[in-house]
Amino acid sequence: MDAVFVLYDQMTALDLVGPYEVLASHPSVTPHFAAVAAGPVRCDGGLVLHAGAALRDVPAPDLIVVPGSSRWLAVLEDSAELIAWLAAAHPAARWTASVCTGSTLLARAGLLAGRPATTHWAARGTLAAGGAIVRAERVVTDGNVITSAGVSAGIDLGLALAARLWGERAAMAIQLGLEYDPAPPFDCGTPEKAPPAVTAAVRAALTGR
Amino acid sequence: MDAVFVLYDQMTALDLVGPYEVLASHPSVTPHFAAVAAGPVRCDGGLVLHAGAALRDVPAPDLIVVPGSSRWLAVLEDSAELIAWLAAAHPAARWTASVCTGSTLLARAGLLAGRPATTHWAARGTLAAGGAIVRAERVVTDGNVITSAGVSAGIDLGLALAARLWGERAAMAIQLGLEYDPAPPFDCGTPEKAPPAVTAAVRAALTGR
Repeated sequence: MDAVFVLYDQMTALDLVGPYEVLASHPSVTPHFAAVAAGPVRCDGGLVLHAGAALRDVPAPDLIVVPGSSRWLAVLEDSAELIAWLAAAHPAARWTASVCTGSTLLARAGLLAGRPATTHWAARGTLAAGGAIVRAERVVTDGNVITSAGVSAGIDLGLALAARLWGERAAMAIQLGLEYDPAPPFDCGTPEKAPPAVTAAVRAALTGR
Repeated sequence: MDAVFVLYDQMTALDLVGPYEVLASHPSVTPHFAAVAAGPVRCDGGLVLHAGAALRDVPAPDLIVVPGSSRWLAVLEDSAELIAWLAAAHPAARWTASVCTGSTLLARAGLLAGRPATTHWAARGTLAAGGAIVRAERVVTDGNVITSAGVSAGIDLGLALAARLWGERAAMAIQLGLEYDPAPPFDCGTPEKAPPAVTAAVRAALTGR
């Protein structure tokens, strides 16, 4: 199956690399890394990824994966061509997936109107404004659209999708290959679990509010 | 602080992008993405990253992060220049970190002789042959060398290092920013937890044995 991993300037690298590492490891997947224009793409932390294709050259993938960005409001304003590609490519795709604020791009493309979806916790308002029914869950599946919470949640999304596509045994093998037996040092990975002052500081850094 | 994220052909992208996303998000960090030669680097799953610098141009970083590869034996044979750089740069570094089989490169550079370290579960034999005392742990810290288990463990390593460098509060903020509240779909992320047939299949795929 042809999988398009969508790249764009100011994207968050881990949003994409989590599900890529899970999904592209399966022998049935041919990965394509595509942006509005082929060439280098600078992530929000400085890492540069290379888009091997332009989106217009991969119009009908089986699987679409859209990452988010820590600057999602600016990205929404700058992504008309990417959003038009999503709206055109989704109807023929077997699965469309987003990680983190990638779901706000799906919403802008009209894919989430009245549908349950998730996003980074700090972007729930943006996603709701885009017409989705926001769920504060790590992975949300609705029909053939699967969305995840922020950044690291893309690994969980990838494994959930792998289990749907290839069965639990195959997904378990991928999880073991990635040695995904997480041991976070703190129990603070959601705003409900983190100390309120930490949540407030991160929210202010991300949203200015 | 100057952080060098080491790139090389056939590296595993998530090994690097996990700790990068954690560490480069701190305002004190200036990230450098460096390979033996500046330019494109093709990861083992097909994603292309861009090395903005040659290793010789960043000889004395404060922090070194070395990813692994699913083809670690071939990488060990092809990486003489990278290994020489590690041996030269480590003595002046504040911290040297490896993810997954990156520790086998550290060992080849002479950094782990008689020291405790970890690696991807399928590469423990290679790491032991390199002179390290292999620990089947997710993150191992010994002096100023910190090593992690396979692929996804680099996120846990990054957060452990962030806590050492900047305190627990700062590390918690980063963890919340990455929404790192993992929910793996299966409890099979180590060979001890996975069904034996799954472990055997993944080991054979990775090692041919």
